[in-house]
Amino acid sequence: MSDNALIAAVDLGSNSFRLQVARTEQGRVVPLEALKETVRLAAGLDEQNCLTEQAQDEALAALGRFGRRLWGMDPARVRVVATNTFRVAKNTAEFLPRAQAALGFPIEIIGGHEEARLIYLGAAHSLTASPKKRLVVDIGGGSTELIIGRQYESLVTESTLMGCVSWSRRFFADGRLGAQALAQAESAARHVLQPFEAAFAAGRWQVAIGTSGTARSLADILLQNGFAQGGITSAGLLQLRERLLQAGHIDQVRLLGLRADRKPVLAGGFAIMAAVFAAFGIEQMQITYGALRDGVLHDLVERRAGGGMRDRTIAAFARRYRVDVPQAEQVAALALQLFGPAAGDTRLVRSLHDAALLHEVGRNISHISFHKHSAYLLRHADMPGFSRQEQAELALLALAQQGRLHKLLAEELSDAQWRAVLALRLAVLVYRARQALALPGLSLIEDQAGHYRLQVPAAWLDAHHLIRFALDEEARAWQKVGKTLLIPHA
Amino acid sequence: MSDNALIAAVDLGSNSFRLQVARTEQGRVVPLEALKETVRLAAGLDEQNCLTEQAQDEALAALGRFGRRLWGMDPARVRVVATNTFRVAKNTAEFLPRAQAALGFPIEIIGGHEEARLIYLGAAHSLTASPKKRLVVDIGGGSTELIIGRQYESLVTESTLMGCVSWSRRFFADGRLGAQALAQAESAARHVLQPFEAAFAAGRWQVAIGTSGTARSLADILLQNGFAQGGITSAGLLQLRERLLQAGHIDQVRLLGLRADRKPVLAGGFAIMAAVFAAFGIEQMQITYGALRDGVLHDLVERRAGGGMRDRTIAAFARRYRVDVPQAEQVAALALQLFGPAAGDTRLVRSLHDAALLHEVGRNISHISFHKHSAYLLRHADMPGFSRQEQAELALLALAQQGRLHKLLAEELSDAQWRAVLALRLAVLVYRARQALALPGLSLIEDQAGHYRLQVPAAWLDAHHLIRFALDEEARAWQKVGKTLLIPHA
Repeated sequence: MSDNALIAAVDLGSNSFRLQVARTEQGRVVPLEALKETVRLAAGLDEQNCLTEQAQDEALAALGRFGRRLWGMDPARVRVVATNTFRVAKNTAEFLPRAQAALGFPIEIIGGHEEARLIYLGAAHSLTASPKKRLVVDIGGGSTELIIGRQYESLVTESTLMGCVSWSRRFFADGRLGAQALAQAESAARHVLQPFEAAFAAGRWQVAIGTSGTARSLADILLQNGFAQGGITSAGLLQLRERLLQAGHIDQVRLLGLRADRKPVLAGGFAIMAAVFAAFGIEQMQITYGALRDGVLHDLVERRAGGGMRDRTIAAFARRYRVDVPQAEQVAALALQLFGPAAGDTRLVRSLHDAALLHEVGRNISHISFHKHSAYLLRHADMPGFSRQEQAELALLALAQQGRLHKLLAEELSDAQWRAVLALRLAVLVYRARQALALPGLSLIEDQAGHYRLQVPAAWLDAHHLIRFALDEEARAWQKVGKTLLIPHA
Repeated sequence: MSDNALIAAVDLGSNSFRLQVARTEQGRVVPLEALKETVRLAAGLDEQNCLTEQAQDEALAALGRFGRRLWGMDPARVRVVATNTFRVAKNTAEFLPRAQAALGFPIEIIGGHEEARLIYLGAAHSLTASPKKRLVVDIGGGSTELIIGRQYESLVTESTLMGCVSWSRRFFADGRLGAQALAQAESAARHVLQPFEAAFAAGRWQVAIGTSGTARSLADILLQNGFAQGGITSAGLLQLRERLLQAGHIDQVRLLGLRADRKPVLAGGFAIMAAVFAAFGIEQMQITYGALRDGVLHDLVERRAGGGMRDRTIAAFARRYRVDVPQAEQVAALALQLFGPAAGDTRLVRSLHDAALLHEVGRNISHISFHKHSAYLLRHADMPGFSRQEQAELALLALAQQGRLHKLLAEELSDAQWRAVLALRLAVLVYRARQALALPGLSLIEDQAGHYRLQVPAAWLDAHHLIRFALDEEARAWQKVGKTLLIPHA
């Protein structure tokens, strides 16, 4: 990335929305302006897990304000990630386009493991370099991420479905702070953490780090009330626990360092943190300001510099699922050649490239209907560096690589996506024999009638009659969905 | 298996149904009686891929005749497998119970790779021992299986969706044997084989073997007409091709060695065999009588002797998907203990055992909703030794291991299956911390009111409050589907 470029990250969390603008300077990220909106989106989920109209309106207003700040920025230098509430809300599909329109930039919904990876990246960049293994705990509004990492690399990532907003709503909805409610909230959090206790137990890491609002708020309270000398300690949490029980109700809590906007989520966040300390045997946790949005910025810089997380994930998948790499590479090269100049849609070119490299991962499950298994894996597997929508697009292309095209009719593909599907199918078809092949010039054009025309010497096709046979079959497949693919005949 | 036991295999193929009764003698399988019914089931599929009423009636009549022969045999010594037409027919779910009732034994629908493995096993046992790599080709009525194997082990298995019945219907429905129809049928078969050409090319094997009716019939014709000295040769196929084209119509074909019941499927079978020879560079193919039903018999003997294919598959899956084996084993042991005496249903006990050992395979895709990924893998992966129904039961148990129980309500579980679900869930729950645990006596009883009662010392639960918490949550989950789980409280 050229130096002194302006970049921005937006984190649409379940408790707050945050915008961070920064400048890159010789590979470093220099923070400039930050905005925060305490939208508390997770509290806007109704009984059916749908975002209420009111919650959507408040979120859209906040996004509009962010959008005005980001106005005019290069979309390739802005990355917007959305986390748990977007993941779990039943009406995300309807809300997302409105949210993107209000913000003016695409929004990527990221999975829990990807969120954990980016949080660690942000935390690691905010800490002084150290060879020690770190446990990073990020109690968000709707999910809690746990990471063990070293230097800039996360080694173990987990994401759980509990956060300070959801826990406060579930156990402290009436504001009362009774011993039983607190015990229930802590037990429920311990229950959630139990499967991870062995992997994250003390001894598996040397230093514990807390990120995000809950950890920072707790550290502020412990420090200002003299319960701890800095960071969060198990002894300090015990003292805070007593004070909360003495108050008996969240409205009665008077504590130095407790900001008004943290009050409604204090009890849930406290219960989760207490459970985290108990579950993993933490005595002391240090706080860092680096968080998800910082990880997003660093990931953006790394991605634009090339050789980013996505390439590493593709290589790892090729190994894990024993992909026939020469075959995948020749299919990818031909698919991109047939797809042709990107016409500005670099995102789709990238998807086509990645999908072509991974289109056969499903063979590791079964060769029978492997394209469906490829689609399943690409949709559901943890793919560091990819958003959920990116994974969905890879899955769509993998599913479309062979078989009937009817399955795509419900997907509302753009013209460019249809073209990508055709390019991938043709590339798979040409290399069906899975061997290197000296190709003549091949290209794909769309004529004025909107028909696809494959440009290839008829004589070459005559000399490769199985490819001709397959192309004629392919033309029939497109005809069945009302589209025309023309193959040259002598 | 005790010696001199009577065993039987039934192969419900797309062209014919076959029954083989045999005696075991010091681990060997001695064939006794064989029955054959040329049902030609694949020809009974209508345009919507449904078995017509007429085809079902004919199949049921044949199954009834088999059933009378098998009457009184130990179900544990009879194995009935069904192949491609059962796999692809849209109304298999309705037909299967009727077929099982007519036969009097359960019918296992096996996948293409499993079919290929069993064919190889049958072929290998019928051949003299040899260290050479064998290519085995089995052109069935609805599918063609390709295997490369050595001794008794299949190394590469593939299954394709073309067979002598379906190919004859598709390209020679009117009985005419024109040059163009034959060329089309061969090209279509080459197209199907193309992805396998590299893996099955001459050089990857030392000897080619043909099994099943199409290969035997072709060898008979070539031999009796002097086109070959034995087996099938590429030169002999060329001569046969000329004779078919000269006849011009299947009714006009007069060939020594061609049985009347093979005539309707000769052209399709010929086209596929010709394509197989061309695709893999075969010059000469030797014929063996060992086939699917023989493989089923040998597999039955091996399975009953213990250490069969299923155990090897489970071990292979545990490695491939990096299962935490100590965790899986402690969960399996407790699940079986809670499930209790089998009450005759050894099949379900085996499923519970296997499901418990593999319930976490989905973690290899993602930890998030891993139970769904486990279910997907267990349903769709190639699992040598398992039938489709067995895989479906493993998938069901894996899906049920955690989360809401509503998802099971549409599945019409038997009482025993519900009990297996509960046993697995409780075992997973008790070992949620993924560590060894000194357990008190634990058992599960059903009282007269039909309630499940977990028998466990209340004092032990009080000392393990996270397990108590999880059990109380579990009791609520069962309450939501109208069932009662009672947990002891002091």
